[in-house]
Amino acid sequence: MQTVAIVGVGLIGGSFGLALREHGFAGDVIGVSSPAAIEAGLNIGAITHSASLEEAASAADLIYLAQPVDRILITLEKLQPLLKPGALVTDAGSTKQAIVAKAETCLASAFLGGHPLAGKEQRGAGAAQADLFLNKPYILTRSSSSSPSLEFESWLGRIGARIVEMSPTEHDSTLAFTSHLPQLVSTALALSLSRQSNPRVSEIFGPGLLDMTRLALSSPELWLSILLTNKAAVLAALNAYSIALADLQESLQNDNLVELFELGSAWAKQIRTPRIDG
Amino acid sequence: MQTVAIVGVGLIGGSFGLALREHGFAGDVIGVSSPAAIEAGLNIGAITHSASLEEAASAADLIYLAQPVDRILITLEKLQPLLKPGALVTDAGSTKQAIVAKAETCLASAFLGGHPLAGKEQRGAGAAQADLFLNKPYILTRSSSSSPSLEFESWLGRIGARIVEMSPTEHDSTLAFTSHLPQLVSTALALSLSRQSNPRVSEIFGPGLLDMTRLALSSPELWLSILLTNKAAVLAALNAYSIALADLQESLQNDNLVELFELGSAWAKQIRTPRIDG
Repeated sequence: MQTVAIVGVGLIGGSFGLALREHGFAGDVIGVSSPAAIEAGLNIGAITHSASLEEAASAADLIYLAQPVDRILITLEKLQPLLKPGALVTDAGSTKQAIVAKAETCLASAFLGGHPLAGKEQRGAGAAQADLFLNKPYILTRSSSSSPSLEFESWLGRIGARIVEMSPTEHDSTLAFTSHLPQLVSTALALSLSRQSNPRVSEIFGPGLLDMTRLALSSPELWLSILLTNKAAVLAALNAYSIALADLQESLQNDNLVELFELGSAWAKQIRTPRIDG
Repeated sequence: MQTVAIVGVGLIGGSFGLALREHGFAGDVIGVSSPAAIEAGLNIGAITHSASLEEAASAADLIYLAQPVDRILITLEKLQPLLKPGALVTDAGSTKQAIVAKAETCLASAFLGGHPLAGKEQRGAGAAQADLFLNKPYILTRSSSSSPSLEFESWLGRIGARIVEMSPTEHDSTLAFTSHLPQLVSTALALSLSRQSNPRVSEIFGPGLLDMTRLALSSPELWLSILLTNKAAVLAALNAYSIALADLQESLQNDNLVELFELGSAWAKQIRTPRIDG
């Protein structure tokens, strides 16, 4: 792996470039992005230079697609005639079924789907960190037809990511609960508070409300393509959530909230308990 | 103000004692709490010694009730015969209507209701901080019959709290949206995820889910008395939230989520924008 092309030099793309270079990758890291993103990527040293998608794809051994989901779907359609023989294309898109299906049509075995669970609310290469992937799950949706990707995976290991293999379906149905639902729950909270006529509601609050509306700050455009490419699973998760909320409401009416609170609290503790990996 | 009694030496009570002493309060700060809480309070220097409620109340010029709401209601019933003439009783309870109504019966003008919006998920005096109240809203529910409390308020100013006056009703209906609803929204998220049979749901997640389930870690017992003393307002807030959630669900079904996302995102930004106070 001599040359890497990063398509979309934002938080994830920028962090990937930075992490590679800080962990000893000595080859070219070509950025394909808007002029502002390229400038930010060069400033922090995430990329070595910039090029068009055509130039970058024909030179790269690894093409890392770190755009929003809808843009990845468009890039995949353009890539096939541009690739160098033996090149690997991978992505960091937040849903996997639509992307993997499109890639199987366009690129066949040259593609390996991925998703680093390493977001933060800031966007852009300016917020990139070399340690963004450290100890975070990095999902790979390998299939029997996927190309060998040992070198890419060894770099993921070097930058500290914890590789987890999942099918695209398992990925999307799991993330519907652990990522897409929390986003909607946060947005619904901000939305419901924005509708209150009591002006104190936007003045009198503690740190808990800030935690609970942090995800609501996320980009609407980014989220639209995530949610629309995982609609059925997200609607199922919303349904499960609405049932839990109605159960809490009923328990409050009946003065017996403690049991449901304890179940929620125990689960919240459990996911913070370091696991012993077998 | 020579002697202060802190009843309930936990996170809030401990932080209040610590803040007073670090800002030059040279009198006695008597802790009334469990042996473990007293030990923690003495260790960090939040209190100077401990006493029974009877002893502390008869010595104190200011009695600061920092217990859970249900415990404050019980303490208020005991206090009246114990108070030194001219003493002020105040509290830090999370709901105000039930407490203020009880205090009016038991203590009349010797009471001033309060609520510092300065929680964090850790409990206990071990987590206390002298700067816990710094720049945070500190609500006082003064009434026409409240005793003069200038000296207490000047100490609140010295420890950096931002005093906001509200009626108990206005407090409880506002906090139903900005504190009690976020708590239930977080608990409902943890509860709905705890019910999923997919084991990946408790393994594969990013930092967003941790943010969104932090409040779910809170003590069920503590929250039970908050929610039960503000039940009607909390049910109204839950209702408004359920409508916002159903609106998002419908927009997702119709592929036109952007507008609602933008409303939520704008509100989440607005509450993070420093206000120019008039």
